[in-house]
Amino acid sequence: MIQYKAPLENIHSILFDTFNLDKYWESWGDALPDKELAGSILEEAAKICQNLLLPLNQSGDQQGCRFDQGHVFTPDGFSEAFKTYATSGWCGLGGNPEYGGQNLPKSLTLMVDEMLYASNPSFALYSVLSSGASLLIDCQASETLKQQYLPALYEGRWTGTMRLTEAQAGSDLGAITCAAEPTDNDQYLISGNKVFITGGEHDLSENIIHLVLARLPGAPTGSKGISLFLVPKFIPDAKGNPAQRNGVQCIGIESKMGIKASSTCQMQFENAVGYLIGTPGRGLNHMFTMMNEERLSIATQGLGIAETGYQSSLAYAQERVQGQVTPGSASNTIIEHPDVNRMLLTQKALNGAGRALAVYIGHQVDITRFSNDETERADADKMVALLTPVAKSFLTDNGFQCAVLAQQVFGGSGFIQETGIEQLVRDARIAQIYEGTNGIQALDLLGRKILADKLAGYQTLHQEMAEWIQSKKPIPELSTIAEATEQALAELDKTTHWIADQNSSNPALAGAVASEYLQLFGLTVYGYLLLRLAASSTEHNSENTLKTANYFANHLLPHSQAFARSIVKN
Amino acid sequence: MIQYKAPLENIHSILFDTFNLDKYWESWGDALPDKELAGSILEEAAKICQNLLLPLNQSGDQQGCRFDQGHVFTPDGFSEAFKTYATSGWCGLGGNPEYGGQNLPKSLTLMVDEMLYASNPSFALYSVLSSGASLLIDCQASETLKQQYLPALYEGRWTGTMRLTEAQAGSDLGAITCAAEPTDNDQYLISGNKVFITGGEHDLSENIIHLVLARLPGAPTGSKGISLFLVPKFIPDAKGNPAQRNGVQCIGIESKMGIKASSTCQMQFENAVGYLIGTPGRGLNHMFTMMNEERLSIATQGLGIAETGYQSSLAYAQERVQGQVTPGSASNTIIEHPDVNRMLLTQKALNGAGRALAVYIGHQVDITRFSNDETERADADKMVALLTPVAKSFLTDNGFQCAVLAQQVFGGSGFIQETGIEQLVRDARIAQIYEGTNGIQALDLLGRKILADKLAGYQTLHQEMAEWIQSKKPIPELSTIAEATEQALAELDKTTHWIADQNSSNPALAGAVASEYLQLFGLTVYGYLLLRLAASSTEHNSENTLKTANYFANHLLPHSQAFARSIVKN
Repeated sequence: MIQYKAPLENIHSILFDTFNLDKYWESWGDALPDKELAGSILEEAAKICQNLLLPLNQSGDQQGCRFDQGHVFTPDGFSEAFKTYATSGWCGLGGNPEYGGQNLPKSLTLMVDEMLYASNPSFALYSVLSSGASLLIDCQASETLKQQYLPALYEGRWTGTMRLTEAQAGSDLGAITCAAEPTDNDQYLISGNKVFITGGEHDLSENIIHLVLARLPGAPTGSKGISLFLVPKFIPDAKGNPAQRNGVQCIGIESKMGIKASSTCQMQFENAVGYLIGTPGRGLNHMFTMMNEERLSIATQGLGIAETGYQSSLAYAQERVQGQVTPGSASNTIIEHPDVNRMLLTQKALNGAGRALAVYIGHQVDITRFSNDETERADADKMVALLTPVAKSFLTDNGFQCAVLAQQVFGGSGFIQETGIEQLVRDARIAQIYEGTNGIQALDLLGRKILADKLAGYQTLHQEMAEWIQSKKPIPELSTIAEATEQALAELDKTTHWIADQNSSNPALAGAVASEYLQLFGLTVYGYLLLRLAASSTEHNSENTLKTANYFANHLLPHSQAFARSIVKN
Repeated sequence: MIQYKAPLENIHSILFDTFNLDKYWESWGDALPDKELAGSILEEAAKICQNLLLPLNQSGDQQGCRFDQGHVFTPDGFSEAFKTYATSGWCGLGGNPEYGGQNLPKSLTLMVDEMLYASNPSFALYSVLSSGASLLIDCQASETLKQQYLPALYEGRWTGTMRLTEAQAGSDLGAITCAAEPTDNDQYLISGNKVFITGGEHDLSENIIHLVLARLPGAPTGSKGISLFLVPKFIPDAKGNPAQRNGVQCIGIESKMGIKASSTCQMQFENAVGYLIGTPGRGLNHMFTMMNEERLSIATQGLGIAETGYQSSLAYAQERVQGQVTPGSASNTIIEHPDVNRMLLTQKALNGAGRALAVYIGHQVDITRFSNDETERADADKMVALLTPVAKSFLTDNGFQCAVLAQQVFGGSGFIQETGIEQLVRDARIAQIYEGTNGIQALDLLGRKILADKLAGYQTLHQEMAEWIQSKKPIPELSTIAEATEQALAELDKTTHWIADQNSSNPALAGAVASEYLQLFGLTVYGYLLLRLAASSTEHNSENTLKTANYFANHLLPHSQAFARSIVKN
């Protein structure tokens, strides 16, 4: 009963009609794809997701990963699928071309991520973590390490992981105790235990490259004493081939609520050879390169699963006949029942806005990578910092809500495993928890990205949103979404300044209101993005997006006021 | 990591401090318990739930039910536990004393239901469905059937089920095709298939008594052609012992997202001997006696699971040390982090209000059973009808939300099966779907219970709420919750009248707004009940309840306005 076709038309329209990204890419030089090439890449991604990965999603959930004496076996078909996926070139999409990467824009690769998660979230994780590890190596590691590791990672012969969490150090990474002893030859010996390591061990690739947070001898306590190390499962020989088995092993995997085909490993390091990446004591900072990359990717986990839920529940609602909308008449399909239609429209509106946010932030990342204008790059960098926690948490909160709504459309059948819908709910749930819980994201948004920034990045975004609203409000078709968003923006602005004013006298306030603030912020940004989608769709004579935007304005955006009212009651 | 102790003090306080139910029970005669006896019953229920049923909850989920050639085997320990449970007298709590029932008030037995679901929702279902079947037999069946079936059901030697759903007839029971052929001797032969039958087959009891909706030959199509039949698994012999195996069998069970220790059966009838209950063609009406009973019980499934989630997440938050609330100071337990505290307070407020609603509606049921005043009984009957869909859906929606919040407090550990929290989320989810989806409940509330009732029952409740608010608003401690509820009530009233005004010209409106209306209604009623809890708690010098009520007023109730605004945008 699971239905998924990549929403290529919608993606194309957001990338090129709404945000005109082809113009930007063109202005940034020959290396970036044009509209046609981008379209082809998305089509090919859709094929591999729909034909190769989607068919393994339910069987992967039912079978799960198996642990046996240090080895982890992924479900049937995963290993072969990963080889096909890797040899087709999907592991190096965003990578540095100097080492074999394809250098594609983030706005484009996030759309590929969405398709991966929509088809098979467990499978997707092996790939996206590898991409994140590659990015971190590319940004921070020595030239030697880059040459040694990046080509194989981009080819998908090797995969990467991030090793942060320890039993006592989850949200609080400053509490990490894993130790790194220097040796005579620029190497380090890493010892300690890590937990909840996604893809820490598996049978998909020849080698697994762990990026590990650990402490050097005498390092200060807290986050300033943490350094970053590269620890391969097999130490490459002189020719670069995996050779000596390193002192890192998987000692168990977790049984989880969902993403069961993704291995979640307890890992043990015993004098594992590691190589320092970046500056000693700056490990956590460096790791944020990877964490932010993963946070954006996880945002599309929420989105992708929600898209599959939407398409599946839409198809079911169009087929399932039950009850009469008008008593006494013939029976109707359930989509004709207004309450079912409401559940479908809610999913559609939230997914459309979420996809626009993913593209929007992806484009900001691209500006930081490709623009020649330093001010533009700096502004975009701020915008990425500001919107990353919003994207991670708001897309995953809504992704889960939408999966639950999709399940509700299925009624009793939605609770049966065979139908496949309940897996979406279980798989979506983790996205609100890992890569920094959504509560942590909210604290990051309000504490670091708004208050500590003295509202600078916030003001830039506010101004941009206000200008768009002003310019579109006079257009009659757009007045509903424009006016509702204007009102939400006013509430957001009043609330933001109120919090900033209180902050010095009441430092506990930000922590208490952060989660509700994030909802207020997210709803407002969604209103803004739906306005932009609606504006470009009316220019292209498509009424559907406008209807969705108006639904959001009338039925979902009003909750922004409730969050605003709640916040000032603290 | 699952923690559950029955909240006896809170239950006691709601029953006797807030609603003074002991006074009512006393006024209704000697047969009802006094405060002390009621307290003892609750204490004993708590013991059996905590000591016998809770320890089987996680193992029951892991093991699930097993189907083998028509037989269903419940998980290890269930069968023995059910015998202990039954022989201790817990199956006949609310039953008719003429046949061995204990005739206890519904307000009390719903609190026992809550404890059952809190400890082991799968186990609870076998028991509560039996109670519902007994009630239906007691209300509608012939004296002969009552004498034959009720004593064994009350003793828990036999259990009962409800057989409504067919593959093509879920929300729309009018589409049922199961057939009943009359025979010469007042018996009927039932043939057809049913799906999603909870407890349709199992190994807990000597006999299973099915209450089945089916059609007599020549019956009109739709719901008016449906009759109700009692179909035993084993036909009792002259001595009343289970004897001849009847033509009803289980042909498979479902693999589900949750409540895995509760068997969900596909059932086949082949000329099964059945006995007519009530009037031919009134089967669906009769069945509502049982369905409404189950809906109230399922409301406490949401509540009970949420209570276990709350207690478990509270205990975890008090133990788990992570991060510093004030940077640079010692690490804190996570309950000291305001965002975690917010998640705990939300659960506490919603559970407190939900428990009060369960007791409130249970008391209305008791008035219909025990009061000597005909007008009072008629009014209470209306109130039960009005509030049943609210209790079923609002308690289960919030139960699920609270289970998700509890899981969120656990962070990554909450996603691991071993911790036990993720089971709560999976087990709570079904309560929003079965016994009439929450969307169906919303249509029932707005369509049947408010609009078709020409707002009569609604007006009675509105007046009661308004009077309480007026009487408590002047008390300074209560002003926050009283004023917030007053505002919500005004929104509810304006919205209700607006819908009623539009209804004749726009009959599709009710279907479109019903779910949001139910949320608005539920939030307002919760405000009212928290006001009453806070009022009685301040009289008893307990500040805790007041704090919870104010939290609800400031942070959760504001969403009622958003729902109201959304509704009038239709």
